[in-house]
Amino acid sequence: MAEEDSMIDIYSHLYWMRFAYQEAEKAFEEGEVPVGAVIVLNNRIIGKGHNLCETLQDATAHAEILAITAASASLKSWRLENAVLYVTLEPCPMCAGAMINARIHSVVYALEDPKAGACDSLFHLCEDPRLNHRVRVFSGYMREQVHSLMSAFFNQLRGRQPVQ
Amino acid sequence: MAEEDSMIDIYSHLYWMRFAYQEAEKAFEEGEVPVGAVIVLNNRIIGKGHNLCETLQDATAHAEILAITAASASLKSWRLENAVLYVTLEPCPMCAGAMINARIHSVVYALEDPKAGACDSLFHLCEDPRLNHRVRVFSGYMREQVHSLMSAFFNQLRGRQPVQ
Repeated sequence: MAEEDSMIDIYSHLYWMRFAYQEAEKAFEEGEVPVGAVIVLNNRIIGKGHNLCETLQDATAHAEILAITAASASLKSWRLENAVLYVTLEPCPMCAGAMINARIHSVVYALEDPKAGACDSLFHLCEDPRLNHRVRVFSGYMREQVHSLMSAFFNQLRGRQPVQ
Repeated sequence: MAEEDSMIDIYSHLYWMRFAYQEAEKAFEEGEVPVGAVIVLNNRIIGKGHNLCETLQDATAHAEILAITAASASLKSWRLENAVLYVTLEPCPMCAGAMINARIHSVVYALEDPKAGACDSLFHLCEDPRLNHRVRVFSGYMREQVHSLMSAFFNQLRGRQPVQ
C-alpha cells in the first residue's frame, strides 16, 4: 500500500469512529454502558446504534446488533457485504457472531475488552477460518477518549469522582 | 441424581423440545431455514421464535434472538436467570453469545451444527470459564426429526426430492 493510501485509511477510520463515539455519548447520557456503533458503506452511514440493554430490558440490544438491524433495513438486505462497522468497544461473542452472519467486511473498534472481547482479547471469532465468512479486524482508533468515557461511566456508577 | 428425577428430566426436555420443533415447522412453511426456539421458566413458555432472516432481511433474526427478546419483554427484564432455552439446531456464535449475555441457565438443542455450532461443534462458548456467565449445554432430544426437517428443507431448496 502506498504511504498516501495508508494515511487516508487512518484518517478515514478516525473520521467514522467519531460518529460511533457520538453514539456512545448518547448511551452515557441515557445511563447505559456507553458503547456506540455506526456502519459505513460507500462513504455513507447506513445504520447506527447505541447500547440500550437497560432501556429496552433486552440483553441483545447491544450497539452493534441495533446498528446491523438498522443497516439491513436501510439496504433492504441482510447481506452487509463491503460494509465496515465502527464500534467504540471490542465486540462480545454475540456481536462478533452477528457481524459474521451479516457478512460485514471489516470491524474497527476503539478499546479492547479483556473481559468479553471476541475479536482479539478472549476469542478470534471474526477471522476463524472454519466459519463461512471472515471479518477483518482493526483497532485502537480513539482508544484514549473511549477509555476515558468508560471510566467516567463506571466511576459515576460507583458514586465516585474520576481519579485526576 | 435419582433415576426417577433423571427420567422426569428427559421427558421434560422432550416435552418442551416439541414446542421448539413446532416453531421450526413455522419457519419451514415460510421458506426460512427451519429453526425454532422456546424459552421455559417455571414450567411455562415465556418466549418463542423461529428463524425470520429472509422475511425480515435481518441476519440477527435467528430463532434464539427473537425468543430472548420476547422472553425479556414478557419478564420486563433482560436477566433470564433460571430459564431454559430449547432450540432445534445448535446455536451459532451470535446466539450462544446472546444466551450468555441474557444469563440463560441452560440450553437444550436437538441437532448439532458442524458448520457453525458454538456450544459443542466449533466452539464451547457457553461453558467458557473466562466469561462472566456459563450456560449449561444438553443435546440430542428429537435429533432425528430435526435432521429430517432440515434435510427436507435443503432438498426442496435444491429442487430435489428427499432421498428415500
